[in-house]
Amino acid sequence: MQKTISILGSTGSIGVNALNVVRHLSDKLDVVYLSAHTNAERMIEQCREFHPQTVVMIDENAAEIVHTELTLDGIEVRSGRRGLLDLAGRKDVDVMLNGLVGALGMEPTLEAVLAGVDVALSNKESLVMAGDIITKTMEKTGARLFPVDSEHSAIWQCLVGESLEDVRRIILTGSGGPFRTRSINTFGDITVDEALNHPNWDMGKKITIDSATMMNKGLEVIEAYWLFQLDPSQVDIVVHPQSIIHSMIELKDGSIKAQLGVPDMKVPIQYALMYPRHAEAPWERLNFMECGDLTFQPPDSERFPCIKLAYDAIDQMGTAPAVLNLANDYAVYSFLNGKIRFTDIPKIIKNAMEKHKWLKNPSLNDLKVLNKWTKLCVNNYS
Amino acid sequence: MQKTISILGSTGSIGVNALNVVRHLSDKLDVVYLSAHTNAERMIEQCREFHPQTVVMIDENAAEIVHTELTLDGIEVRSGRRGLLDLAGRKDVDVMLNGLVGALGMEPTLEAVLAGVDVALSNKESLVMAGDIITKTMEKTGARLFPVDSEHSAIWQCLVGESLEDVRRIILTGSGGPFRTRSINTFGDITVDEALNHPNWDMGKKITIDSATMMNKGLEVIEAYWLFQLDPSQVDIVVHPQSIIHSMIELKDGSIKAQLGVPDMKVPIQYALMYPRHAEAPWERLNFMECGDLTFQPPDSERFPCIKLAYDAIDQMGTAPAVLNLANDYAVYSFLNGKIRFTDIPKIIKNAMEKHKWLKNPSLNDLKVLNKWTKLCVNNYS
Repeated sequence: MQKTISILGSTGSIGVNALNVVRHLSDKLDVVYLSAHTNAERMIEQCREFHPQTVVMIDENAAEIVHTELTLDGIEVRSGRRGLLDLAGRKDVDVMLNGLVGALGMEPTLEAVLAGVDVALSNKESLVMAGDIITKTMEKTGARLFPVDSEHSAIWQCLVGESLEDVRRIILTGSGGPFRTRSINTFGDITVDEALNHPNWDMGKKITIDSATMMNKGLEVIEAYWLFQLDPSQVDIVVHPQSIIHSMIELKDGSIKAQLGVPDMKVPIQYALMYPRHAEAPWERLNFMECGDLTFQPPDSERFPCIKLAYDAIDQMGTAPAVLNLANDYAVYSFLNGKIRFTDIPKIIKNAMEKHKWLKNPSLNDLKVLNKWTKLCVNNYS
Repeated sequence: MQKTISILGSTGSIGVNALNVVRHLSDKLDVVYLSAHTNAERMIEQCREFHPQTVVMIDENAAEIVHTELTLDGIEVRSGRRGLLDLAGRKDVDVMLNGLVGALGMEPTLEAVLAGVDVALSNKESLVMAGDIITKTMEKTGARLFPVDSEHSAIWQCLVGESLEDVRRIILTGSGGPFRTRSINTFGDITVDEALNHPNWDMGKKITIDSATMMNKGLEVIEAYWLFQLDPSQVDIVVHPQSIIHSMIELKDGSIKAQLGVPDMKVPIQYALMYPRHAEAPWERLNFMECGDLTFQPPDSERFPCIKLAYDAIDQMGTAPAVLNLANDYAVYSFLNGKIRFTDIPKIIKNAMEKHKWLKNPSLNDLKVLNKWTKLCVNNYS
C-alpha cells in the first residue's frame, strides 16, 4: 500500500532530497501536494515527474507561470501564503513533510497537526517558536512529529523500542561548522562565501549559516526538548567534526546508543517518510575503512556564543525561544545580504532577547506581534 | 517485583561481575542458585552475602568444604556435573545466567531452555557447538536467549524495536587483541603472560587467549548466526582497537546503529538480567572528552588465521563449528599449560577440522563422541 505525502518547500534542499527518495520508492510513496516559493521552473519539472493533485506557489507571478504551463495536466495550482496554509491543513495525506526554511514554516506545521496529519519535520523553527502550542494540539488530535533533522532523527532511531524513563541524557553531535579552528580574532572578517562553505553537509543557505554560528545546535537543543520531552539538563552537545555519528542517547545503565552514517539528508528524510521501516536505498554507504578517525571535543562557548543564548532561552522559556529564533532569522538574512558582520549575529539576538516583552504562554497572535517587533528591532540595530 | 536468577560459574569473571550487578539491584534481582567449579572460599563468601537456596560445586572436595561451612545456614549444597545439570534444568527461576567457560557450558544451556527458562548467555560455546539443537528446543519451549557477550549485547540493543527484515548486516567490532601491531615474525615466541595481557578488557583466561588469536571474533560470528538468524554473509568484522563501540547494525536505508560505552562487562550482564530495561547503575560512564579518537581497520587474516577457520566452519556447518570450538578449547588449554606455542593453536584446529568425521545433524551424543575424539586429536598433535 502506498503512503500519500505532501511536501512543503519541494524546490528547496530538503524537498529535492525528498523527491529523490520518492523516485526510488515510487511503489510505496505517492506525492499528492507540493509547495514552493518562487522557483517555477523546478516546480514544473517536479509536477511533470510526480503528478501531484495540487501545488502552491507562494509568489503570485511564479504561480501564474506554473498555472499556464500545467493547465492541460489537470494539476490544480494555487498561490500565496493562504494557499500554503490551506494545503498544509488538508486531512487527506498520511504524512506532510515540512521542508520550509525559517519561522514561516511554523504555521503550516500547526495546520497539519490540527488536521491530525503526521508531520515529517525539517523546519526546526516550528517547535522552537511554538513548541507548547504544537504539542498541546498533538495531544488533542493524535498527530505525530517525525524528525527529519539528522540529529533528531538519530535520537529518534536510537529511542525506538526503549523506555524514555531509562534515558539519562541525549547527546547532540555537531561538526563545529567551518570555523571550528579559525582564529577567533578574525571572526569579524568572515565573508558570506566562507560561512556558506560547510565541511560536511550540503544544505540550504539559512541552515548553513546557522551551522557556522552553531546556532543550529542551540535551536536543536530547544527542538529536542519538545520532541522528546526531556529536561534541558538532559540535552548535551558534543563537537564531532566528521559528522559520522549523527547523535546519541545515554541510558541509565551507561549503555550509549548512536546512529551513524554518511552525511546525507536522504537517510533521515526516507526514515521519516517510511517510519517505522528502514527501506532499501541505492545511495552510498558508510565505509569504516575510509571514514577516518572519529573525534570528539567540547563545544567552545567563547567562539560560538549562540549556544549559550539558546540555553538561556530554554531557561526563560515563554517567548524567549521564539524571539531567539526570529532575531536569528532576520540577522542571518541581513548577514547573507551583506548588511551586518558575522559577529553581529549573536549580539543582535542577545539585544532582541533582552529588549522584547516576555510572555509566559504566548498565543499564535502574540507570536505574530513578536515577529513584527523583532524584525524592526533587528533592522534598527546598530 | 523481584526477578529470580541463577548464576552458573559464580566465582568466575562473569559470575563475580553479575553479583556486583545484583548487589546494587538487590530490590529487583534475587539470587536463588549458584554454581562454581573449585573455589570454595569465594563461594562461601557469596552464599553468606546473597543467601541462595541451593549451590553446586563441581569439585567433590570443594563441595564438602562448602557443605561443612554452610550447614547451619540452611543452604543446600550439591556436587558434580550431575548436580550442575540438575540445577540448570530447574524451572523455578526467571533467568539463568550461564557464565561457564568452554564447551562444558553447552549442556547446562540446553537443560535450561528445555525447562523453558530464559538464559542470559555468556558461554558462547553453547551456540557454536549446538546452535541447531538449542534453537529448535527454544522453539518448542518458548525459552529465550539474552546475549551477555559485549558484542552480541550491543547488536541485541541496536535491534530493539527494529524489524530483522530491515537489517542489511551486522558489524562485530574487535579490539584486535594484544598482538594487533606485533611483528608477525615473532608470533612463535609469544608467551602466556603476553597473551593474557589484553589491552582493554579484564576477562577470564580462556577468552583472553581467544582475543589474542582473534578466535573469539570467529566464535562470535557463529554465535551471531544462531542468535540473530542472519546469513553468515551478513556478519562482518571490523577491528576497532579502543573497544568503545561494542558492535553495530547496518539497516537497509544505510542507517547504522551502534552501542558504545566503557569496556565493562557489568553493562551487558545487567542488561541481560534486567531486559528490556536499562536500570540505573553506579559505575563509570563513557566521557567523550577523554576516550580518545575512535579508529577502524580491516581484520588481518594472515596474522589471525583463526578468523578464516571460523568462516570455513560456518560454510561447512554440521559438526564443523563444534570441532573448531573443541579443538580451540583443548589447544588454548595446552598453550596455557606451556605445552604448545601460540602459533600452534590455529594449526591444531585446522588439523582437527580436516580429520574429524563430519556429520550434518549431530545429536548431543554425537557431540560427546566428537569431544573425546578431538581431545585425543589435539593432544596427539605434533
